[in-house]
Amino acid sequence: MKRGFYIGRFQPYHNGHQTVLEHIATKVDEIIIGVGSAQLSHQVENPFTAGERVMMITRSLSSLDCPFYVIPIEDIQRNALWVAHVRSMTPPFDTCYSSNPLVVQLFREAGIEVLSPAMYERELLSGTEIRHRMLNKKPWKKLVPRAVVRVLDEIDGAGRLCQIAGDD
Amino acid sequence: MKRGFYIGRFQPYHNGHQTVLEHIATKVDEIIIGVGSAQLSHQVENPFTAGERVMMITRSLSSLDCPFYVIPIEDIQRNALWVAHVRSMTPPFDTCYSSNPLVVQLFREAGIEVLSPAMYERELLSGTEIRHRMLNKKPWKKLVPRAVVRVLDEIDGAGRLCQIAGDD
Amino acid sequence: MKRGFYIGRFQPYHNGHQTVLEHIATKVDEIIIGVGSAQLSHQVENPFTAGERVMMITRSLSSLDCPFYVIPIEDIQRNALWVAHVRSMTPPFDTCYSSNPLVVQLFREAGIEVLSPAMYERELLSGTEIRHRMLNKKPWKKLVPRAVVRVLDEIDGAGRLCQIAGDD
Amino acid sequence: MKRGFYIGRFQPYHNGHQTVLEHIATKVDEIIIGVGSAQLSHQVENPFTAGERVMMITRSLSSLDCPFYVIPIEDIQRNALWVAHVRSMTPPFDTCYSSNPLVVQLFREAGIEVLSPAMYERELLSGTEIRHRMLNKKPWKKLVPRAVVRVLDEIDGAGRLCQIAGDD
Amino acid sequence: MKRGFYIGRFQPYHNGHQTVLEHIATKVDEIIIGVGSAQLSHQVENPFTAGERVMMITRSLSSLDCPFYVIPIEDIQRNALWVAHVRSMTPPFDTCYSSNPLVVQLFREAGIEVLSPAMYERELLSGTEIRHRMLNKKPWKKLVPRAVVRVLDEIDGAGRLCQIAGDD
Amino acid sequence: MKRGFYIGRFQPYHNGHQTVLEHIATKVDEIIIGVGSAQLSHQVENPFTAGERVMMITRSLSSLDCPFYVIPIEDIQRNALWVAHVRSMTPPFDTCYSSNPLVVQLFREAGIEVLSPAMYERELLSGTEIRHRMLNKKPWKKLVPRAVVRVLDEIDGAGRLCQIAGDD
Repeated sequence: MKRGFYIGRFQPYHNGHQTVLEHIATKVDEIIIGVGSAQLSHQVENPFTAGERVMMITRSLSSLDCPFYVIPIEDIQRNALWVAHVRSMTPPFDTCYSSNPLVVQLFREAGIEVLSPAMYERELLSGTEIRHRMLNKKPWKKLVPRAVVRVLDEIDGAGRLCQIAGDD
Repeated sequence: MKRGFYIGRFQPYHNGHQTVLEHIATKVDEIIIGVGSAQLSHQVENPFTAGERVMMITRSLSSLDCPFYVIPIEDIQRNALWVAHVRSMTPPFDTCYSSNPLVVQLFREAGIEVLSPAMYERELLSGTEIRHRMLNKKPWKKLVPRAVVRVLDEIDGAGRLCQIAGDD
Repeated sequence: MKRGFYIGRFQPYHNGHQTVLEHIATKVDEIIIGVGSAQLSHQVENPFTAGERVMMITRSLSSLDCPFYVIPIEDIQRNALWVAHVRSMTPPFDTCYSSNPLVVQLFREAGIEVLSPAMYERELLSGTEIRHRMLNKKPWKKLVPRAVVRVLDEIDGAGRLCQIAGDD
Repeated sequence: MKRGFYIGRFQPYHNGHQTVLEHIATKVDEIIIGVGSAQLSHQVENPFTAGERVMMITRSLSSLDCPFYVIPIEDIQRNALWVAHVRSMTPPFDTCYSSNPLVVQLFREAGIEVLSPAMYERELLSGTEIRHRMLNKKPWKKLVPRAVVRVLDEIDGAGRLCQIAGDD
Repeated sequence: MKRGFYIGRFQPYHNGHQTVLEHIATKVDEIIIGVGSAQLSHQVENPFTAGERVMMITRSLSSLDCPFYVIPIEDIQRNALWVAHVRSMTPPFDTCYSSNPLVVQLFREAGIEVLSPAMYERELLSGTEIRHRMLNKKPWKKLVPRAVVRVLDEIDGAGRLCQIAGDD
Repeated sequence: MKRGFYIGRFQPYHNGHQTVLEHIATKVDEIIIGVGSAQLSHQVENPFTAGERVMMITRSLSSLDCPFYVIPIEDIQRNALWVAHVRSMTPPFDTCYSSNPLVVQLFREAGIEVLSPAMYERELLSGTEIRHRMLNKKPWKKLVPRAVVRVLDEIDGAGRLCQIAGDD
């Protein structure tokens, strides 16, 4: 059984994440998706709760042909302990898929294989870009899976983001 | 969409949990399973990591005819904040299934419906009983789903429990 | 200006506390009342929130002829830092009134005067005794100020205590 | 009994806060004043301890014709839990008075009424402006109640601020 | 360069610890001594601060013919992260010397060699026994190195212990 | 016995620190060196673990003619408690040596003498400058003691820093 680990903040989950995960699904038997900074929400950089992000991911992957786990991972503010923290919260895995330089370094120091998946249309498909578009009332729905649009509509995600970004 | 929330420590997950969840599956559209005290492991009362418990549950429910989420929930040592904590980590739910008096009180004060499912052979089907049997080399494998036996064999769960329970 | 500090958990505030505070009021210009273990609630030993305890104390002392502050003090689990923690949360004070051996030691090591007020009917006037009576449906209302009875009625304090003390 | 909740950092408490509270006092039976970021002090943005801020507020309001509570509220770094945290530390309230966009959003999601009081001379009456003046030896005492001047003199507040803002 | 790690709470440091460390000194090039539960003090089970314990150990080993490090290690309440925590606070080491069943298990799961040193007169040479004797005014000074007696005299360690163990 | 306390982050330990400590060694009987922000590592501003920093310092001072203690000090994010935190982790001391404005203020408020040692070639001998040179492949080894070069070579310190500073 080969398991791959993929982590992100998913604020929100978008088509770039989906493409990467569909690729990983062809390489491993099971995928573990870590929802990073799980404790954060209601911030301009981190508007959505871990539970909302779990729901976006799970629904977007409902027809993925590979079993997966979606696990909230709270920050611990201790880089030297972070890999042990991740491993205590997840089923065992062999490979980490990440392009984040710190994540790459921490897993490598722990002796775990790291692969950096190619990313697709990275300027456009980024949480920063999508939140920027929500704040400026520009089109963003094409950039995320349809299941994510439904979740964000249900919780009025764009409304929340605009409110918390308002001036005092 | 009706979602039900069920929480336990699952040290380990056993046939009593399985029976309750199979019952809940007939009542709701989706189940959210909270893995409580997620930060604890390697203790006589809490031998298994959250990741190991997530794996036990997910595999045991692989043929359940109801979508489910398995979410580690770390303790926060603040009872008055616990419901908000749970809700931030989970998709929205309508009903909590629990017999624990504190859980019942906290959800009721938060205005959430709580149902207490009947439990089956409670003396026998309890984490305490199963850990006791592991420690005393008595038969325990009949009390848990076969998927749990496989996980515990893979991680040498009984060996870990006996070691940490040893005398200094 | 002479200020005195008095700390307790006040689970609940009772006539013994009231008597001590009425005595301290004759000795100082202002009283600071620290509500200890402020983060705890919904436990058999600590059923009431800090806010509920602040309300019990403030109302019971409404006719006290001495200005007072009521300040929740969260535990920090570091005895060596506790005096600094208390002082950061309170106006400056000269004297601590306490009979608790640890509190006495910590303030003395910090060079602060500690006085141990006589306590009145200590067996009867104790949080432990009052919670025991609530749990066993025995009379307790005579042991607390009338304002406390009203607060506990409003929040159904005795009902909460009985529920959380119930068997699983 | 109608209670209103008002929160600020009060670094320091100034005439703008005083004006708002005098207005709220005409609308409710009791006021609860939350002293936010209570754990912070000795920073350029947060020079004063919670205890010092409690003292500034309490003395400035000594002739207010409305009972009030002054409660330190430590940050919890979890926006989704913050309303539950505040409510556990305070007497129950019906209305929150705030213009802060995040506070407004969090209380509204929790189903609590929020009113945004008009603020008076906001450029001038702000903690930022007053700390700036203290650092640059410009006049600031007219911007705060006289009781605040006395507290700051007693603790040498301006001296502390200038020292911690110094170059290494 | 071969380094050995030895951990204890050292409440207080005694002749049993000294004997074990003198033995380890013959096996390795450098010793790392972890002062566990560093954050605890002023408790009947943990009366002394980390700083006091560092001083007891350093002075008692002043003539040891092996370089050593003495490092306070705060608890993290997460067994699965504890080895990573220890390693982040200490120079790298090859071997852990411990008889504590949990420590043994955690280091073994991390792939680090663990040796269990023989202990000498274990009933007598234990922190529990020494604290018991201090509390009951029985002779204890023979059970600890002379440097420890001097530290405990300087801080009135026995006096502190008796005070905090007193009845309320 | 006169003890002096000196604190830094030592990211990394350099010749400026060494010069100051050699000066302090002529003034006191024992030196306590606090390794600040001990919990941080693997950040561009804080690349090295506390254990790595302890090793750099201890080896660089191996021929210092003054006994010294090297103690990791984790941040506590509470300035008002920081002096008590430091004192709980260290042997007692009389004098703090520091030029940091906040450290000076906090120790002075606690009634402890603070001396500000002259610093030597401060533009050049700073952690910021050395990390900048590591990142830009410019010469830095002359700025630190030879023992530090050896530690950094052993752990590939410069390589770690460049990796974590990389673009995503």
